[in-house]
Amino acid sequence: MSNQFVIGLDYGTNSVRALIVNAANGAEVGTAVWEYAHGAHGVILSRDPNLARQHPADYVAGAEAAIRRALAATKRNVRGFKPEQIIGIGVDTTGSTPIPVDADGQPLAFDQRFARNLNAMAWLWKDHTGVVEAAEITECARQKRPQYLAKCGGTYSSEWFFSKILHCLRADVAVFDAAHTWVECADWIPAMLTGTEAPGKITVGVCAAGHKAMYNDTWGGYPDAGFLGALHSKLGRLRSRLCPTAHTIDRAVGGLTDEWARRTGLRAGAPVAVGAFDAHLGGVGAGIAPGTLVKIIGTSTCDMMVAPVGEPLADIPGLCGIVNGSILPGYHGLEAGQSAVGDIFNWFVNYVRAGSHQSLSAGAAKLKPGESGLLALDWNNGNRTILVDQLLTGVLLGQTLYTTPEEIYRALIEATAFGALTIINRFEEYGVKVRQIVNCGGIAEKNPLVMQIYADVTGRPMKVSRSAQTCALGAAIAGAVAAGRFENFAEAQQAMTGLKKHVFMPDPKAHAIYRKLYALYHKLHDAFGTKEWNGNLHDVMKKLLEIRSLVRK
Amino acid sequence: MSNQFVIGLDYGTNSVRALIVNAANGAEVGTAVWEYAHGAHGVILSRDPNLARQHPADYVAGAEAAIRRALAATKRNVRGFKPEQIIGIGVDTTGSTPIPVDADGQPLAFDQRFARNLNAMAWLWKDHTGVVEAAEITECARQKRPQYLAKCGGTYSSEWFFSKILHCLRADVAVFDAAHTWVECADWIPAMLTGTEAPGKITVGVCAAGHKAMYNDTWGGYPDAGFLGALHSKLGRLRSRLCPTAHTIDRAVGGLTDEWARRTGLRAGAPVAVGAFDAHLGGVGAGIAPGTLVKIIGTSTCDMMVAPVGEPLADIPGLCGIVNGSILPGYHGLEAGQSAVGDIFNWFVNYVRAGSHQSLSAGAAKLKPGESGLLALDWNNGNRTILVDQLLTGVLLGQTLYTTPEEIYRALIEATAFGALTIINRFEEYGVKVRQIVNCGGIAEKNPLVMQIYADVTGRPMKVSRSAQTCALGAAIAGAVAAGRFENFAEAQQAMTGLKKHVFMPDPKAHAIYRKLYALYHKLHDAFGTKEWNGNLHDVMKKLLEIRSLVRK
Repeated sequence: MSNQFVIGLDYGTNSVRALIVNAANGAEVGTAVWEYAHGAHGVILSRDPNLARQHPADYVAGAEAAIRRALAATKRNVRGFKPEQIIGIGVDTTGSTPIPVDADGQPLAFDQRFARNLNAMAWLWKDHTGVVEAAEITECARQKRPQYLAKCGGTYSSEWFFSKILHCLRADVAVFDAAHTWVECADWIPAMLTGTEAPGKITVGVCAAGHKAMYNDTWGGYPDAGFLGALHSKLGRLRSRLCPTAHTIDRAVGGLTDEWARRTGLRAGAPVAVGAFDAHLGGVGAGIAPGTLVKIIGTSTCDMMVAPVGEPLADIPGLCGIVNGSILPGYHGLEAGQSAVGDIFNWFVNYVRAGSHQSLSAGAAKLKPGESGLLALDWNNGNRTILVDQLLTGVLLGQTLYTTPEEIYRALIEATAFGALTIINRFEEYGVKVRQIVNCGGIAEKNPLVMQIYADVTGRPMKVSRSAQTCALGAAIAGAVAAGRFENFAEAQQAMTGLKKHVFMPDPKAHAIYRKLYALYHKLHDAFGTKEWNGNLHDVMKKLLEIRSLVRK
Repeated sequence: MSNQFVIGLDYGTNSVRALIVNAANGAEVGTAVWEYAHGAHGVILSRDPNLARQHPADYVAGAEAAIRRALAATKRNVRGFKPEQIIGIGVDTTGSTPIPVDADGQPLAFDQRFARNLNAMAWLWKDHTGVVEAAEITECARQKRPQYLAKCGGTYSSEWFFSKILHCLRADVAVFDAAHTWVECADWIPAMLTGTEAPGKITVGVCAAGHKAMYNDTWGGYPDAGFLGALHSKLGRLRSRLCPTAHTIDRAVGGLTDEWARRTGLRAGAPVAVGAFDAHLGGVGAGIAPGTLVKIIGTSTCDMMVAPVGEPLADIPGLCGIVNGSILPGYHGLEAGQSAVGDIFNWFVNYVRAGSHQSLSAGAAKLKPGESGLLALDWNNGNRTILVDQLLTGVLLGQTLYTTPEEIYRALIEATAFGALTIINRFEEYGVKVRQIVNCGGIAEKNPLVMQIYADVTGRPMKVSRSAQTCALGAAIAGAVAAGRFENFAEAQQAMTGLKKHVFMPDPKAHAIYRKLYALYHKLHDAFGTKEWNGNLHDVMKKLLEIRSLVRK
């Protein structure tokens, strides 16, 4: 049997990547990245700091360019490689990134009438314009459908599907009225590649629907029309124009069209798997299994776990969702995450302009835990898990007249580590044991300081995925399974995923200091983040100074 | 009568200034600044971030150099000027800045044995090494002598006389034992100029003694030996080697020695007034009188008021002191202050390195109140008034992924304005009405943005002293009064002080926003700064975002 390859298409915040993988062993044989052409690094911003959009034209142009270049790279790398050897295609995207589409399933942004209207574009995951609507949906569900909330952590987020759609309905009814329906980016790309965009033809994935749109088989799919109608009658009427059934990623939505075969050089008819979010397929590419927490650390993080369907599982407050089949068929997918991680470091470098990542990391690495007296909250972009509250902001505390940028940079890293620990604790408090942690994504790959601090803060070994492109790899694995190359995902993961040799081990001395700092973080977290907390913060600065003295001795 | 001149010697944190003034009208006819030679800009630091010392050799060299150069400048500026026309000399210094001295009144630092010992030098006002000792003194006074605390705001500070001496006794007993006694810099300089350094000959001022060393006529001067002995037996024995009586600044400590006449070019025998702190003589130079709050704004601030002796006056918790005659004879001097103001802006520019003062001010001036969503606490160097707690640190809250350095810089300015308002409110809560505010010092002089923000935050007009050198001017005024040129200080101030024409008026719209922000500042202030506060901070970030939305609309 000649070698078989699969291709993963990974639509990120700033660019799209195509990755070609040997299905037999996971070897990554060719890749290419295409930067989106619109906005600032692919993100269209406005004066409203909550707004973040993308132009769907970038998705189309990006698929063609990235696949063509990845094929070219593979031809250079693999002797005798032929594009026909690619047996399956998988797709992952950011989300919730809903796109308003017309009756043919084409994005409204492609229509001349809406070409310059930001509301007609893709509403990027980190768009928070629907913060009021999110609160409204949460309140409505609390009163009428508490079961909806139980599966999405108790709060419906402004980052999610219906918050964005309802906000569009309120803020720009012309766009809402012109849209036949709304489609997640993760569903639209596979549909585009297979010519199944049209309503009635399109296949949607359970990942996006379940985590971001309250889709659940136990109540018949999406929220019922009565509930949506209570928010707005037009939203109620939209219900019938949403796809009735959502599917897991082991199925193909169709075969590559002749046109896309021509545009990319791939074989027409090659099966394209059901799309899913980057984090979920990143989990797959990192070898997710029961007991393994996969942390995908980039501009934000996603913290993914799975739990076998059929075993008891509590509703976990603050999680982004618990969805049957959202990561692996046969398992509940559990999604948690931090709204900003790398984005916080990038903010400090690009906005505060106090040094480069390299210089700040080098300086921060020389510091001992607790030595700076600083403590920060990692909420510059709100808090996704466990507070599910975008109306939170960053805090830096403990600065003196001698505090350096390197100390601040380290405090920001530590803050994200404390945020990570809060998520781990939440999983375990509700009975989902974390037996190993596998990190992946840009920061896990490139920043050993961050990984060591995460090990020291959590007191747990930090493993790193062998692949630097777990999301695209996961998509490629889905392509392989959809193409029938493997019986199931466990078999595919066994063949195609792995870990790096180096494991970041926690230093017990550092961990002891971080336990003290985490207690203070936790106090600030609850004081600013919850209504229930009641107390006094008089000891916080004093304890930080005490720890500082202790460490400096 | 030919013109008469006086000279003020102003010993600051980084340099000493000599200012020659026409006694008839306050015209400043010649000035010179001499930068201290030791340490970083005159301040000797160590790995211990609490430590800040000065070398007394800089005081000696500085007097000679600054006076000589000021005389030379005056000769260039005033036709026919002769140094003999200088009829009196006044001195102000930082404080509490105690110096350990030998049996001849010479600083131990001049002794070869201690030449490199930081503890034998002058313990600069902002040295916080005695933080544990300060708490001990406070506790001891609370139990045994509550009356001591009532006059110094309820808490004895680590910045003050006995905290530093007791810390030296604990940390470096060799220095303590070698010292015959300890003398405030404000007392030592006039003694040096008049050859009265020796114990028995030296005259001490009530300003330093009263505000920093619990000196009060009602209990017989300094704290009694029993009290000091309860802290440490050696401290009890030091009591008898402290000068028994402290004086107001209307008196001369003696005449300039022949040697100092030769070194400086001034007339031998010229009267030198009793020394006082820079802030107190700055108050005099800014025209302090009942109802006038003088704010001296530099690296830190001093907030000075006077209240007539004989009228009822409450003990005011959190003030640095209420001392009979410490500013003007016949009035209680009331001292409050912020531990860092300009130092916070300098920290941001020099340590965080996010821009220059000029570029940051220009950017910050374009922002509207509340527009950034930021809120800061001005505690990078602790809090002097009203919390009297050095074990506090800075806070920055509200940052997003788009927060700019200009926004942070403005938030830091606003934080110092909120701190200033807290002091004004404290005066008024205890019956000391603030009828006008006169600002002076480097920042009042040079930074109109800071002055406008102070007006907008407090809702009060901000006036600025005519003189850019009110401390040195106040010292010169004391020299004039000590020389008998005026009957009293009111007459001298009438002749020699004034205000600038431009007054910064509050903008009602900005003030309305700042009232909301101040309520949030106040909440953080009490939550982190007091043990009594009990509550929840869940609304703080949300209200900041609300205000931000409102302002950006």
